[in-house]
Amino acid sequence: MHDSLTLQLIGEFIGTMILILLGDGVVAAVSLNKSKAQGAGWVAIALGWGLAVTLGVYCSAFLSPAHLNPAVTLGMAIAGVFNWSYVVPYIIAQTLGAIVGATIVWINYYPHWKETDDSQAILGVFATEPAIRNYPMNFISEFIGTFVLVFALLAFTRGKFTQGLNPIVVGLLITAIGFSLGGTTGYAINPARDLGPRIAHQILPIANKGDSDWAYSWVPILGPLAGGAVGAWIYLLIP
Amino acid sequence: MHDSLTLQLIGEFIGTMILILLGDGVVAAVSLNKSKAQGAGWVAIALGWGLAVTLGVYCSAFLSPAHLNPAVTLGMAIAGVFNWSYVVPYIIAQTLGAIVGATIVWINYYPHWKETDDSQAILGVFATEPAIRNYPMNFISEFIGTFVLVFALLAFTRGKFTQGLNPIVVGLLITAIGFSLGGTTGYAINPARDLGPRIAHQILPIANKGDSDWAYSWVPILGPLAGGAVGAWIYLLIP
Amino acid sequence: MHDSLTLQLIGEFIGTMILILLGDGVVAAVSLNKSKAQGAGWVAIALGWGLAVTLGVYCSAFLSPAHLNPAVTLGMAIAGVFNWSYVVPYIIAQTLGAIVGATIVWINYYPHWKETDDSQAILGVFATEPAIRNYPMNFISEFIGTFVLVFALLAFTRGKFTQGLNPIVVGLLITAIGFSLGGTTGYAINPARDLGPRIAHQILPIANKGDSDWAYSWVPILGPLAGGAVGAWIYLLIP
Amino acid sequence: MHDSLTLQLIGEFIGTMILILLGDGVVAAVSLNKSKAQGAGWVAIALGWGLAVTLGVYCSAFLSPAHLNPAVTLGMAIAGVFNWSYVVPYIIAQTLGAIVGATIVWINYYPHWKETDDSQAILGVFATEPAIRNYPMNFISEFIGTFVLVFALLAFTRGKFTQGLNPIVVGLLITAIGFSLGGTTGYAINPARDLGPRIAHQILPIANKGDSDWAYSWVPILGPLAGGAVGAWIYLLIP
Repeated sequence: MHDSLTLQLIGEFIGTMILILLGDGVVAAVSLNKSKAQGAGWVAIALGWGLAVTLGVYCSAFLSPAHLNPAVTLGMAIAGVFNWSYVVPYIIAQTLGAIVGATIVWINYYPHWKETDDSQAILGVFATEPAIRNYPMNFISEFIGTFVLVFALLAFTRGKFTQGLNPIVVGLLITAIGFSLGGTTGYAINPARDLGPRIAHQILPIANKGDSDWAYSWVPILGPLAGGAVGAWIYLLIP
Repeated sequence: MHDSLTLQLIGEFIGTMILILLGDGVVAAVSLNKSKAQGAGWVAIALGWGLAVTLGVYCSAFLSPAHLNPAVTLGMAIAGVFNWSYVVPYIIAQTLGAIVGATIVWINYYPHWKETDDSQAILGVFATEPAIRNYPMNFISEFIGTFVLVFALLAFTRGKFTQGLNPIVVGLLITAIGFSLGGTTGYAINPARDLGPRIAHQILPIANKGDSDWAYSWVPILGPLAGGAVGAWIYLLIP
Repeated sequence: MHDSLTLQLIGEFIGTMILILLGDGVVAAVSLNKSKAQGAGWVAIALGWGLAVTLGVYCSAFLSPAHLNPAVTLGMAIAGVFNWSYVVPYIIAQTLGAIVGATIVWINYYPHWKETDDSQAILGVFATEPAIRNYPMNFISEFIGTFVLVFALLAFTRGKFTQGLNPIVVGLLITAIGFSLGGTTGYAINPARDLGPRIAHQILPIANKGDSDWAYSWVPILGPLAGGAVGAWIYLLIP
Repeated sequence: MHDSLTLQLIGEFIGTMILILLGDGVVAAVSLNKSKAQGAGWVAIALGWGLAVTLGVYCSAFLSPAHLNPAVTLGMAIAGVFNWSYVVPYIIAQTLGAIVGATIVWINYYPHWKETDDSQAILGVFATEPAIRNYPMNFISEFIGTFVLVFALLAFTRGKFTQGLNPIVVGLLITAIGFSLGGTTGYAINPARDLGPRIAHQILPIANKGDSDWAYSWVPILGPLAGGAVGAWIYLLIP
């Protein structure tokens, strides 16, 4: 990790870009018509998102602490292991990286959008959507998932890891949350992961796209921020 | 690991809570109607439960030895690597953690219970049920699975692991038992894993729930305790 | 690893027993009627057999070199890293362990055999069967798979592994061979893995069982032995 | 790794042979009629190709730097960590290894070709084919995938890995690219991986084979070379 804030921000930008390129990419692979991976299902999604985080961390950890997630940045600041004055610039870099990552997904799967007439499936590649729309319970699902994420990340810091294993363990954590808690809201558990691609969905001229569902967009922002903050706070209560 | 028994019990409570939250969570994700992961099948279940144990261990190992399982606690005491006077408090902490973990699964999937009219599927999220009801053979299945679990955990202690890898290996062990031996009874292999969530199923006002099948409940308690005890005993016979 | 041959043989017995219990177990889980894992398919089989080897190695490596496979024992002797005088006792211990492991699979899934009227599926739990019966090409498939296995195991010895990672890498190797080369003959790649359970199938009073197909049994014995021997020999040609 | 160029070339030959044997092998396993793994789908393909790379690296890393990919060799030369004068011989060794690996796949699955009347499926075992034929966008897909591959490989070199873990991380990277970006063109991301087996498909007397589609063959050669080169160049811009 670099001392320079600029290089740290470049790291967060690159890492979140890779995270979203691979994460939104696996949803595109599984959902879009004529994709070779269409129908590979939730096992592919849960493994693919876990690997997306692992590789986002590997691709940025030489520059930054590889949060790649505003809820993690906030949680680490609350836990006292991250400088509060860096929180806002980190979140901006993460969100910009997510927008660019989602844009590359759009380019990579360019011929597939016009073959896919389901605008809900197209939105689902970019942003999360609840299985059952129930704002309070959707908020709680995002809260629980991110609580587990931030609490576990902090617990990891007290264990003894090899430097090289840590990104794999973080990816396994994401895969576990996806398998176990993601059936309800699609586990954003990261405000930048949802907001950045939703902005990309709004802006880009994607064939067959529909509404960007901004009415739901606050849930995967505030749920993760609250869950991460409380996860950090509970962690601090343990001696 | 802490010297304080209180902190160890908090560790067992937290670890078993995470274990059941993620473990029962993956069954909910795969079984409940309208879940995005519905139908992901046994591969998701076996991987999801393995990761649940891995993360339960990571989240508790800075406080306790991360047994998270009365059969393991008993087996370690028989093997002489755990203090007999701690066995009962550990089992209580594990069972309470399991009840709380199952309760959070109920909250996380709250809108999905009333969409799921199969009360057997709902019970299956919480407690194990045999594929073919045959108490003696179901007992033997649980015995065999937990025998392998405890014998392998003890064998691991004689190998040379990095501290950070151990939780992953334990998770792989659970995944293996799930893939290979779990087709019969759903591999409780852990009395707290079955009893705690069954209590939660009994108590909580879950929509569409049916009977908690207490007639079967002794099998996933006594089978694992017996299998773990004999696994430890056989291990001790090897010089 | 112990110096005592007796303890080494106990290690090979235990490790091969665990290997077959978990390996034949996953085939039972996926194939037998009313199993909760029925239909989980080739992904479960390839992952399950890989984990079976990983755990067989972990459970025996404190006693023996954890070959668990006569083709590996022969290959290591040819490569000059194993004592020729131990080859025959090792193979006997491995085959006995395989018979016992297959017997425990029969016990674990006891109520499921009589629910499964397909005697081919039942034989398939124990012994390998070719997808297309063609003895010369089946032999070559087993030869190729075991060539890769033994060559890779020897190549691993020249790399720098942590002691704890090695069993995982060996399991990944088995999973890879299963995914990529196993579609033809079911990848015995281990004479004890096929012969031991075939003997168990012949002897045990399994409900609904049919013929043990001894006409095919020489293929998964001689193919692996030849492939492993040539793999070791080619390896020796590399300076 | 050896100092001798000859031994390095043998390493690249062996490693790419294993890579293609296991990689094309999993496509054969999943696609060919009567294969036991038929229908195992994209999860098997993505995991199988990742393991193919992991094992290709393990089997060659004692001899060579285990590039196994002309785009990686070119990228490493551009990044200044590989000798330019070795680039052409490396690429020749990799392509020859790929031809031999594909030939062994043909042998391993010999009885299955004549059972498979879909000549597109047979070509797909050997060479990549686009889901939607669109040369500019197919080129861009291969560019993006290989950009991520080479950028990540270079980022890994700045992290701190154990020697033994590196091949596993590289395999996870390939699996991630497969899950997330491979739905469009089948992720050659390696000119030798596509050209070598396409030559084998052209030459070998494969039952039921059709055209080798040389019109498409430049895409999985030039796309990866360009993507890898730009990935290395962008990496160099980061201080």
